[in-house]
Amino acid sequence: MFISFEGIDGSGKSTQARLLAETLRAAGFDVIHTREPGGSKGAEEIRALVLEGDPDRWSAETEILLFTAARRDHMEKTILPALNAGQVVICDRFADSTRVFQGVTRGDLQAKVNRLHDEMIGIEPDMTLLFDMDPALGLARAKGRQTVEERFEDFGQDFQEKCRAAFLALAQTYPRFTVIDAGRDIDVVAREVADLVTTRLSAGTPQQAQP
Amino acid sequence: MFISFEGIDGSGKSTQARLLAETLRAAGFDVIHTREPGGSKGAEEIRALVLEGDPDRWSAETEILLFTAARRDHMEKTILPALNAGQVVICDRFADSTRVFQGVTRGDLQAKVNRLHDEMIGIEPDMTLLFDMDPALGLARAKGRQTVEERFEDFGQDFQEKCRAAFLALAQTYPRFTVIDAGRDIDVVAREVADLVTTRLSAGTPQQAQP
Repeated sequence: MFISFEGIDGSGKSTQARLLAETLRAAGFDVIHTREPGGSKGAEEIRALVLEGDPDRWSAETEILLFTAARRDHMEKTILPALNAGQVVICDRFADSTRVFQGVTRGDLQAKVNRLHDEMIGIEPDMTLLFDMDPALGLARAKGRQTVEERFEDFGQDFQEKCRAAFLALAQTYPRFTVIDAGRDIDVVAREVADLVTTRLSAGTPQQAQP
Repeated sequence: MFISFEGIDGSGKSTQARLLAETLRAAGFDVIHTREPGGSKGAEEIRALVLEGDPDRWSAETEILLFTAARRDHMEKTILPALNAGQVVICDRFADSTRVFQGVTRGDLQAKVNRLHDEMIGIEPDMTLLFDMDPALGLARAKGRQTVEERFEDFGQDFQEKCRAAFLALAQTYPRFTVIDAGRDIDVVAREVADLVTTRLSAGTPQQAQP
């Protein structure tokens, strides 16, 4: 099963992804915990190219192409081999993040992202957990960290509000989404996530991504 | 005017591109001589990512995405600003090289390259000069050089034969192509190229690429 974790910066999804991986492993599942952009050797190199240096060095279109290249490599080298080996794949961000962040940056880009995705990637997660929270709280959390990728966390609250709305719109569109109230206590959220996923896993065979 | 130089490895197109740039500059034209993959700061970094390291590190699909990302950056930062400033752009390889090399590698990929090109690039040269020659001669010439990009020159004569045929097929498809017999003496070829281009330039306004 392929599970993606999505949400605005500071929504706690990375922590929750780690906690879910631990819980599932403790329950005997074979789990891969990965992330985007990155998640394979080549994709991590592309990630560095996109996220380091002057934030304006790439246009939105070039960024979409680089993110899709990284996703293609990640899919080929990490995600599909794991799925084909029967592992549970927990992925911190996937294509929905590109749909949201590029689509919010410029309105016409989400359709471009979708066409590029259909042409070059073609798979979607079996289950997408959207960690939804008030951007003011998310931003306060994100600012507590200092990472090389802070460019995406530096657009301010207005940008994050638009991203939150865009994620919620995707959740309305695709039945694979479940919206999680991420403003609650970390342990409460973790328990809900573990319950959701283990219920789904014990319900049996999800549709399998094809190579 | 946007002129691309295409052909198999060792066809002499890079030398001819340099000679044409010199000739046009001497005739008073404002000329930019650029190349792909590369041709802008970001595109050169993507070029290094694709061409260095293990030749099998990227799949054909990921390569297409990386080449298209490099082309988008090159177009935005180098080609379109030069065309909009009225300069003559001489480009050593452009999208036709991706069509040929990826299409020959795997038959289904040329259509993918075309769809990606239409979606993310959208411009074509006003004039494409195809330097056509016997691959045996081209290969002998290419082997005289030792470059980091030799991976593309290392596939042998059979591969180059297929590339030659694929380039000639493109020349049949697109009226912007002119096929040059590149097996002749370098000065003879240079004179023919200079005549062709100056005739076209003095014939006046070509269609201008849009931003």
